[in-house]
Amino acid sequence: MDKSLTSKEKFEHIFPLIVEDLENYLTTLNIPQIGKDWFMKNLHYNCLGGKLSRGLSVIDSYEILLERPLSEEEYKKAAVLGWTVELLQAFFLVVDDMMDQSKTRRNQCCWYLMPNVGMIAINDSFMLESSIFFLLKKYFKEEPYYTTLMENFHDATFKTEFGQLLDLLTAPENIPENNVDLSRFSMERHSFIIEFKTTFYSFYLPVVLAMNMAGISSEDDLEQAKNILVPLGKYFQIQDDFLDCFGDPDVIGKIGTDIMENKCTWLINKALEKANPLQRKILEENYGRRNTDSELIVKKIYYELELSKEFEKYEQEAVNNILKLISKIDESRGLKKKVFTTFLDKIYQRSK
Amino acid sequence: MDKSLTSKEKFEHIFPLIVEDLENYLTTLNIPQIGKDWFMKNLHYNCLGGKLSRGLSVIDSYEILLERPLSEEEYKKAAVLGWTVELLQAFFLVVDDMMDQSKTRRNQCCWYLMPNVGMIAINDSFMLESSIFFLLKKYFKEEPYYTTLMENFHDATFKTEFGQLLDLLTAPENIPENNVDLSRFSMERHSFIIEFKTTFYSFYLPVVLAMNMAGISSEDDLEQAKNILVPLGKYFQIQDDFLDCFGDPDVIGKIGTDIMENKCTWLINKALEKANPLQRKILEENYGRRNTDSELIVKKIYYELELSKEFEKYEQEAVNNILKLISKIDESRGLKKKVFTTFLDKIYQRSK
Repeated sequence: MDKSLTSKEKFEHIFPLIVEDLENYLTTLNIPQIGKDWFMKNLHYNCLGGKLSRGLSVIDSYEILLERPLSEEEYKKAAVLGWTVELLQAFFLVVDDMMDQSKTRRNQCCWYLMPNVGMIAINDSFMLESSIFFLLKKYFKEEPYYTTLMENFHDATFKTEFGQLLDLLTAPENIPENNVDLSRFSMERHSFIIEFKTTFYSFYLPVVLAMNMAGISSEDDLEQAKNILVPLGKYFQIQDDFLDCFGDPDVIGKIGTDIMENKCTWLINKALEKANPLQRKILEENYGRRNTDSELIVKKIYYELELSKEFEKYEQEAVNNILKLISKIDESRGLKKKVFTTFLDKIYQRSK
Repeated sequence: MDKSLTSKEKFEHIFPLIVEDLENYLTTLNIPQIGKDWFMKNLHYNCLGGKLSRGLSVIDSYEILLERPLSEEEYKKAAVLGWTVELLQAFFLVVDDMMDQSKTRRNQCCWYLMPNVGMIAINDSFMLESSIFFLLKKYFKEEPYYTTLMENFHDATFKTEFGQLLDLLTAPENIPENNVDLSRFSMERHSFIIEFKTTFYSFYLPVVLAMNMAGISSEDDLEQAKNILVPLGKYFQIQDDFLDCFGDPDVIGKIGTDIMENKCTWLINKALEKANPLQRKILEENYGRRNTDSELIVKKIYYELELSKEFEKYEQEAVNNILKLISKIDESRGLKKKVFTTFLDKIYQRSK
């Protein structure tokens, strides 16, 4: 606990440095004060307050791959790279909240709902994304892997957008509630959405960035990493779906709204698999309705179908499978099993 | 006229090729049909129907710099690069329309107002941007200037976003109408906004991409290009402001809404410079109000203040200044004056 707190705090101490870099850039461009103030607020509001697990993964993976403690210089570069992943996450979250009409995020009001923000949040999200490439240029321009880092971001971003698109098309927000159509859902569709929407940018990207920094980037090793990080990321997202309904809102930092928002989650798909015709009818009549009565009725069915137990069963199978995949890793070119076991340890049976 | 029509049509014939590249990519990723269909519609709806002047500038500039007709292969690469600039433009326009609450664009309904689109348009705009980097990788990965092309896009994008931010903060959309505050406006602020919001991606970017392709990319030449293209782009945007109010909606493809939308335009700033206290009071009471009566009252003041004549005066001065800058260009390293005179010819006294 103490150790993880310390590594997070250490990482947070790098944040003011990248903010300063960006602020200096704005100064050289003669951006008027009103614009500088706004952008600074955007950065602080949307990059901080989360678990920072993606950013920390870059640093942790890099240290494991080097097999020795990082020098101060190495730590700073890895941390800057970590913050670029956090900027990507912030870019996605700002607009995800708009598209999902969410109210809270990380125990605070969503950015677009803050006074005088509104639709400006779209441009703010773009600026978070642009900050990534500004920082990559500043810190990595001279590295042989600079171009690859940019490509890593572009690839992960495009894939995440495909996942988000399928999520939005599968559970449209802007259709009348009585048009909710659960026949669009399936475990297969769910699996596609979470693979694209979550695993590439949250799991594969941080590790592949660290691999590039460490000079371990053969096609074979990238493939090995992907083959473990995709299932690992799926397991993480299914935990997320589970916690949205069965977790403690105070611990996870937001009030779960997947049921009311008609989300294509692991829980609803598992429920549809197990439901008898009457239970299915009740789910169809209550899922995706924006009232707490309907939400409670859906939750009651989830309890009847013992989805908590189903999740535990899934979790054990998923973890066993991932451990088996890790055990088969070929470490001969420098990739390390420990990169993945560390990752798995962090998320196994998490409560937030 | 015929020649320009032909060059536009020739450019348009490349569009299906890039659409096919993107479609093939989606196929390799196993994106479900519903997602492919949506993305194809997004591409066609948002990239076509405009003047394509940015994309054509890449091709024209490249041909001028090479000082000979392009081979088929060279044309195709330049046209792909041209389409990436059009994708960037589409990315900005989709969300600009959302932030400005516009209704029409290029003689059709704005994308976000199309049935079942709504906030999905935000993610759609991201996918247009991501398509740029997919295409750059596919067509330019082996070129020594590949990394520079990516940086050109990143730089122009970030600057455009600063301009958009200042525009949104100077004329907020989401404040009550009676809080419209013209004291925030000034010609200086206007100049900053248009420099950042328009000139970099619409004028500097197409030329700098062509320069990189042609191998003419010394710091000195980039600086020369910027020093002309920024004033040229400002002149273009001031024309745009003029046409929004004084142009023919059928010709420009949209109904001007700058007055009702409280935009910080050249016209309102020139009016504020010239207005007597009574006229200023009338402007303050009617600018940025969402009704056609107030809009007409503002237009009446514009006529009283002879802004049409003011614009003509500005136009002559701007064009003379740009011609003077062009005449001083040092062509010794390969940059050509003709790149800029061609550009200027296209926009001088345009009606759309």
